[in-house]
Amino acid sequence: MDLLMLSNDAVLAEEWRAELARLDPPIRLRLPGDDRQGDVVAALVDGPVDGRLADWRDIRLVIGLNAGVEDLLGDPTLPSIPLLRMVCPETVALMKEYVCHYVIRARGRFEGLEAAQRAGRWEAGPGFPPPAAFRVAVMGLGELVLPTAQSLRDLGYCVSGWSRTLKTVPGIACYRGRKELESMLATTDVLICMLPLTPATRGLICADLLAKLPRNASFINVGRGGCVVEADLLAGLDQDRLSHATLDVFEREPPPSDSPLWAHPRVTMTPHVAATPDTAACAKRVARVLSAVLQGEDVRGLVDRAQGY
Amino acid sequence: MDLLMLSNDAVLAEEWRAELARLDPPIRLRLPGDDRQGDVVAALVDGPVDGRLADWRDIRLVIGLNAGVEDLLGDPTLPSIPLLRMVCPETVALMKEYVCHYVIRARGRFEGLEAAQRAGRWEAGPGFPPPAAFRVAVMGLGELVLPTAQSLRDLGYCVSGWSRTLKTVPGIACYRGRKELESMLATTDVLICMLPLTPATRGLICADLLAKLPRNASFINVGRGGCVVEADLLAGLDQDRLSHATLDVFEREPPPSDSPLWAHPRVTMTPHVAATPDTAACAKRVARVLSAVLQGEDVRGLVDRAQGY
Repeated sequence: MDLLMLSNDAVLAEEWRAELARLDPPIRLRLPGDDRQGDVVAALVDGPVDGRLADWRDIRLVIGLNAGVEDLLGDPTLPSIPLLRMVCPETVALMKEYVCHYVIRARGRFEGLEAAQRAGRWEAGPGFPPPAAFRVAVMGLGELVLPTAQSLRDLGYCVSGWSRTLKTVPGIACYRGRKELESMLATTDVLICMLPLTPATRGLICADLLAKLPRNASFINVGRGGCVVEADLLAGLDQDRLSHATLDVFEREPPPSDSPLWAHPRVTMTPHVAATPDTAACAKRVARVLSAVLQGEDVRGLVDRAQGY
Repeated sequence: MDLLMLSNDAVLAEEWRAELARLDPPIRLRLPGDDRQGDVVAALVDGPVDGRLADWRDIRLVIGLNAGVEDLLGDPTLPSIPLLRMVCPETVALMKEYVCHYVIRARGRFEGLEAAQRAGRWEAGPGFPPPAAFRVAVMGLGELVLPTAQSLRDLGYCVSGWSRTLKTVPGIACYRGRKELESMLATTDVLICMLPLTPATRGLICADLLAKLPRNASFINVGRGGCVVEADLLAGLDQDRLSHATLDVFEREPPPSDSPLWAHPRVTMTPHVAATPDTAACAKRVARVLSAVLQGEDVRGLVDRAQGY
């Protein structure tokens, strides 16, 4: 069983080749320059296809290496076969860990304690408000978002969720539509964007929307950079309306070297890694998917092209 | 309904008076110097009783303000009435938040990313191993520990638990006894002490035991300082066998100003606050407890004096 990989990153391809060879049974990695003989079931791609699948007619599935597929869907040479986003249990677990980490940081419970240590002071103080007093709102409630929102709820935070279609999730206040979004934001201490990039979400988080948040709210973006107007976000931080932004995704990636985000005292930047498992975990996921495809089983996580994610 | 408070901290007593007065129905706070008339159901204490309950014969319950009660149990003037530890949903939620925060930190996933930002570098790297690759072990599996261990499991970590009596918890490998403790430690990346202080746990975590951990494991103590031999822990850190210690509890609290812990580059210290809710949350808990006592209902969280916790 062979897998075609389309990537301009030779180091990454080499890593994949090694991990796939380690599986039982092993999977052989093919590259576009290789001969077209043999049983190539699927293509693994980390960006647009750019016509490179034209000669590989046996391929039954395209697997996008990232959770977001907007680049792929914008590519007219993408064949009309099922398209899968790389969302596996490991992706979900890494996303949960990332978001929980930065939500806990946004509560501000630990920074003061650690500053006291550095100053040699024992400052137990009067105790800290419980997590239930901290209002966390997520935008998006899909495959990757729902378990993250549930983790936040299980840690005791007061969690709200906003999505395109109204969801019902025990212990999470669910909202939909523009008007409900605004009322959700008015009672939010930390807003987390987990939206895909679609025509409906591009630039959605702009000055107008950020102004609905209470003063000193903070913001986390693990969705797509294009959902946020970065200039508006920066203005909110600089004008003391927002206390902090944690950004894993950006309008341009990497952001230009003269972007004020890099050195902003109220910005934490990470390089689009919130939900990126190591290649070993991804290779195991691909093996499970290929096995399901070959046995004619349903594959979970297929992209709905009409919705764009 | 009145509540007697024994505390040498006048500021804390004043905070309690204000929070209890805000409840519906309000509870009146009494201090040892006040007259003994009226309906005083329970005593709230933040340390040994030291004979101060002798004249308050109507009191039916002693409530320890802390989750640990070893000071109280060592006090021969403690009356033989039910003793309750202050463990409420807010205590549990704060403990979960504390432990999850420092376990995530112990994984080392985010420090490098933030250093890259400060250096102006976009270093996405090859992805990160999933949480399931990180082995977390808790010592203790009681009222406060079990939900914490479950949170860690739900975040995807590989969780083990060790306790005096063998427990069965789905998704958590459970151990008991000395020999099983040693085999658990051999496969642990971060060890979390959540033990109460009893004759059986005093000094339990010593050089001998720490040596069973793999090199570069880290350690978190949110149990009791007396469970750990601090000199042995420091030796482990200084000899590069342990990578980090996060300590909320200490042999002496606060640790002496010349303790090497304060400025140790591999030690994070917090002032015994891992599970300390603000007074508002504690006052609500006390009101629920007093209401249960008055209605003859069972009160959860009573101390087993024979076991010492």
